[in-house]
This record gives sequence, structure tokens and C-alpha cells, in this order.
Amino acid sequence: MHVSAYAAQSATTPLVPFTAARREPRPDDVTIDIAYCGVCHSDLHQARNDWGNSKFPMVPGHEIIGRVTAVGTAVTRFAVGDQVGVGCMVDSCQQCASCSRGLEQYCEKGSTLTYNGVDRRDGLPTFGGYSERIVVNDKFVVKIPDGLDLAGAAPLLCAGITTWSPLRQWNIGHGNKVAVVGLGGLGHMALKLARALGAEVTLFTRSPDKEADARALGAHHVVLSTDSAQMKASARQFDLIIDTVPYAHDLNPYLPTLALDGTIVLVGYLGPLNPPVNSMLLIGGRKSVAGSAIGGIAETQEMLDFCGEHGITSDIEVIRMQDINAAYERMLKSDVKYRFVIDLASLRA
Amino acid sequence: MHVSAYAAQSATTPLVPFTAARREPRPDDVTIDIAYCGVCHSDLHQARNDWGNSKFPMVPGHEIIGRVTAVGTAVTRFAVGDQVGVGCMVDSCQQCASCSRGLEQYCEKGSTLTYNGVDRRDGLPTFGGYSERIVVNDKFVVKIPDGLDLAGAAPLLCAGITTWSPLRQWNIGHGNKVAVVGLGGLGHMALKLARALGAEVTLFTRSPDKEADARALGAHHVVLSTDSAQMKASARQFDLIIDTVPYAHDLNPYLPTLALDGTIVLVGYLGPLNPPVNSMLLIGGRKSVAGSAIGGIAETQEMLDFCGEHGITSDIEVIRMQDINAAYERMLKSDVKYRFVIDLASLRA
Ligand SMILES: [Zn+2]
Ligand SMILES: [Zn+2]
Ligand SMILES: [Zn+2]
Ligand SMILES: [Zn+2]
Repeated sequence: MHVSAYAAQSATTPLVPFTAARREPRPDDVTIDIAYCGVCHSDLHQARNDWGNSKFPMVPGHEIIGRVTAVGTAVTRFAVGDQVGVGCMVDSCQQCASCSRGLEQYCEKGSTLTYNGVDRRDGLPTFGGYSERIVVNDKFVVKIPDGLDLAGAAPLLCAGITTWSPLRQWNIGHGNKVAVVGLGGLGHMALKLARALGAEVTLFTRSPDKEADARALGAHHVVLSTDSAQMKASARQFDLIIDTVPYAHDLNPYLPTLALDGTIVLVGYLGPLNPPVNSMLLIGGRKSVAGSAIGGIAETQEMLDFCGEHGITSDIEVIRMQDINAAYERMLKSDVKYRFVIDLASLRA
Repeated sequence: MHVSAYAAQSATTPLVPFTAARREPRPDDVTIDIAYCGVCHSDLHQARNDWGNSKFPMVPGHEIIGRVTAVGTAVTRFAVGDQVGVGCMVDSCQQCASCSRGLEQYCEKGSTLTYNGVDRRDGLPTFGGYSERIVVNDKFVVKIPDGLDLAGAAPLLCAGITTWSPLRQWNIGHGNKVAVVGLGGLGHMALKLARALGAEVTLFTRSPDKEADARALGAHHVVLSTDSAQMKASARQFDLIIDTVPYAHDLNPYLPTLALDGTIVLVGYLGPLNPPVNSMLLIGGRKSVAGSAIGGIAETQEMLDFCGEHGITSDIEVIRMQDINAAYERMLKSDVKYRFVIDLASLRA
């Protein structure tokens, strides 16, 4: 099957219209007409080959919302017309220790990424959500609760689950204090989700002008990380800090703000922790620096159901597919509150 | 009261005989005739002002074993003649969240160190176990189980508890795989304790010639960390790695050997983690780098009782007080299996 899409043809050229070949649906496949697709920072990184592993042509997009148009004969959980989502993964080995625990993102054989990946069965490249239609193994499709704004729900599939998973892993709820570093696509979801889980929530930011927005998104407190008096007053406060900053930065100023046995979990940055973490700040208070990657399919569904109950979606700016290159430029300047979402109707018009 | 001791008079001179002034016992004090004192690496670091906070004259020593010779009127848990121990701390605020949880080593006001510290009540310097007698608040005195070799038990008060505490904090027991990095005073205790707790135990080492000793101490497996094939074969194995290496070293090669949700806990090195940890290795598998400091008084007693039941002591070489400077030189060359212990009878002779 051939579908309309937008693709990067190289790391240095803008995204352009592209016709993507998708596999004919298998018995366990769900075919989805895509309504919306969020624009994640990793789309930009991968389109520009910032991580050195990009294959072109590439159709980015892994925050996919749509409606089921066909199901294979082996599919039982979905029916034509269902509102569904697809996130960062479309397959995994389904057999290793991680997959057995429902943590497909840590598949020991490597999960199949929604784009810039290779299908495990036919060896063909995977293409993402900047397109009109997608065909996905039913185990990697999730249901979108009724009542959620579909465009606003799209970023839940990556930004939402990436912050939800550590909140759940570290058992955050009433009585806990959580801080979030960075107020972008991930950070604004972390504020909303931590607040809805009952935690007392703080945003660390370097920009005083983010305070009002942060409070509107759920933060009880805003701490200017450039203000040493404020940082000192935050000593030993937080059970968990979710660090969403997507580039190398100094973790050491945050470590004294962790409570005994506290953890700072990195969800936004892949690379060397430079400047280096000082182990003295870990040993004094039995603290941890951890990492967390997106989330498993079961916990993605759990997060979506939670968002359905609490009416949580992402704050978004809807764009047309044709505006993607301009959106990338604005993302580089952090000029978006807080996620661009592509309305795929623009591709069909 | 004045007691015979050995002291460093400066960072650059050898330890020499010294008469230390100790306080007259308070109602809640226990007076202890010291039988043995282990020689910890931090004794050497502090005597030479490696950490920049040394006060002289300094009487090192925080692995103290002795016999009670007097108790204050408010002391109920100890009686004259009891075999007791004193570790790295002799007081704390007793009121903060950490102290309330029995984790005095993380006292928010700072615990009072056994030497190179300042007594919270009289403001006088604390002097450690390289001496014939010590006076200690009863809350910081622990009981030494009958049947343990007293000289071999001395290092349990620092090397033992420093490795026991993370094993307990991370719930290590039957069914867990634990690795230990470094085979010195801390490392050899980590092997013994992890093995006795029922874990499957591996030593990481750079020296093939340590294999026989490691196995005798409890290791089921020995992995040469310089052998990339062996390291690769250890991928995703360990629930906990206890890293006892006392200097900056690269943690990145160990991270792939952690299982999903595994932790590498640093107990031996205070300073910047250089070369920097790569967050990709944490995010892939939700792994953590943590730190842990000695242990609380309650868990020190728990560890001693466990060692009593299992007949666990440190492997030691007993020396005379007069040989301490030569022992320091040998420690710098790692020429000890695995702890020097001073027989304080030598000071009284
Ligand atoms: Zn993403
Ligand atoms: Zn798998
Ligand atoms: Zn020590
Ligand atoms: Zn305290």
C-alpha cells in the first residue's frame, strides 16, 4: 500500500512530500487513518542525523492518533472506528525478560522503532506518523479514551509516557515531593502528571518569566536554578527530580535538593554527563542518578486511561503538514507551548 | 582523662606517640579499653590531609573493638566487661529525619566523626582508636557477638558496614546477582557478606592473579574487567554492583552488565565521576548510579549479629601500634590482605 507522507531525504534538506510504501496488513495488524501526529524533539534530531544513525528517506513521527480502518483476522482488541494511538515502538521480540514484564522499551533484542527502524519480519524500513495512514502490530496499538481532545492527546504517546513511567516506577503520589527540570514538551507533561498523581510539584527553571505558566500547568512552586539562595532553601526536598533537559548540563546543583534516598532521573538527554557528577553528593544521602526511556505498552495504556479520567492532554499548537520545516526552526528556538501537533487532514486536502 | 595514643602532628610527618585528652565520662557515656583498631584507607587520607579538612594533632582510627571498663549512670544497654565496638561516628543530632530513621550517617546536621571531628556538646576535638581508651555516647556503641575473633571483627565497624548497608538497602538475597568492583578492605567484605546473604557473587578485577583469593572469599565468578569478551558475556547480569574502588575510574564499562533496573553503588570514591557517565547507558535499562555511606547504628548492630551467626570476620594482618607508618606505606601499594589491625596491647607494653 502506498500512502502520502512527508519525508526527510537527507540530513541537510527540508522535509518534502513523499509517497511511502507500507506493508499489506498481516493478520495481527491494525490499519489506522492518522488524524494527528505530535512533533517530538527526536523527530528533528533524527531528521538531521544528530545521533548518526539516520536512514533516508525518513518519515518521522511517533506521537500518532487516529482511527482504525481495518483489522486483521487475528486482531481481537480493536475494531474499525476505534480511536487509537501509536507511540515510539511498533514491535519488540516479545520473549525476553523485559518484554515479559511489559517493558518493551527495554527489549533485550532492541524494540522496533516507529520510524528509522527496520521491521523484524520483512526487514523493510519503518515510517512514522507524518503520513496519512499506518499499519501496526496490534500489540503496539493503544486505545484513546473517549472525551480526550485527539490533537492534544497525541503528545501523550511520547512526552506523556516518558514522564509518566518514572513517576510510576518511583511510586510518586500523595505525600511525595517531585521537581521537574526544564519546561518543554516533556517538562510540561511532567508537571501535569505529577500534580494529578497527588505530589507536591516544583519546577526548576532558569527563566523567571516561566513562573506563571508553570503554576498554571500544575507547579506548586517554582525555583530559579540560577538563584543560589533559592537552591539552598530547596535542600533535601525532593523524592524524585525528573530532568527533561535535552542537552548536557550540570546535575550537581540539583543533587543537594534531593531528599535522603532521592533520585534524579534523566529522560531527555543521551550522552556523557558533563560536567561530571560528584559522587560525594550521591554518597551523602544515598542518592541516585538514573535514566528512564519512554514506557511499556501496558503502562502507556495505563497513562492514557489516567489522562482520560483526569482530562489531561498536552498544551499544543496545531500545524499543517506543509508547515513542518518552519515548526522545526521554531522548536530550535524553544518557540512552542509546548508541542506542535500536525493535523494530517492537511495532507489529504 | 589522659590516654596514650598515636597521632599525626601534621600532614607531612609520620604518626608519633601522643597523649590525648579525653573528656571525663558523662552519664550517658561508655568508657572502653581498646583491644584492636582496624586501619582504614580514610585514616591514611585524613592523616595526610588528602581531603583538605584535617585538623592536627589527629588520632585516627574508626574500627574500634574493646571492652567496657565503666558506664555512666544513664547507660542501661552496657555493663562493665562487655565486648563492644565503635565505628565511624560517635554522635549525631538525634532529631532530624535521617536520625529518626536510624540513619545517623546521613544526619542533616552532620554526624560527629570518631576522629577529626568536634564533639557536639563540649566543642573539643574527637580522637579515634589509635589509643588505649575511648569515651563514647552509649547510642554509638555496638555489641560484638560472642565467638567472633576480636581482631578480625574490628574492620566490620567500617569496611563491613559500608558494604552491608547497600546490600540491605537494595534487598539483596537469594536469587540476586551481585558484583563487586575492587578487592581490598571493602571489596573482600562485600564478597563475604553478599555470599552469606545468599546472592550469586561476581568479582570484577583487572588482575587475573586475584581469582583464587576471590573465590576463597566467596565469589562464584571472577570477571576480568580488561577482557572485553568476558565483559560482554556479563551483559545484563547484575541487580547490584558494589564499587569499592577508592579513586576516579570509568563506570561506563560496568553499566551494560547491570540488569534491568540495576544499580551501581559507589562506596569507595568521593569526587567527580571522570570520565563522565554516559546517560545512554542509564536510560537503556532504567539503571542507576548511586552512592552509599557507611551505615546507621542499628544496621551496624544487625550486621554484627549476622556476622556472629555466620562466623564472618575480616581477613587481617595484626600489627603493633609502633608499625603504623610502615603499614601506611604498604597500604599505598595495596600490600595487605585485606586489612591491617592494630593490637593496642602494643601501646600499653
Ligand atoms: Zn519522542
Ligand atoms: Zn524483548
Ligand atoms: Zn573507614
Ligand atoms: Zn540528625
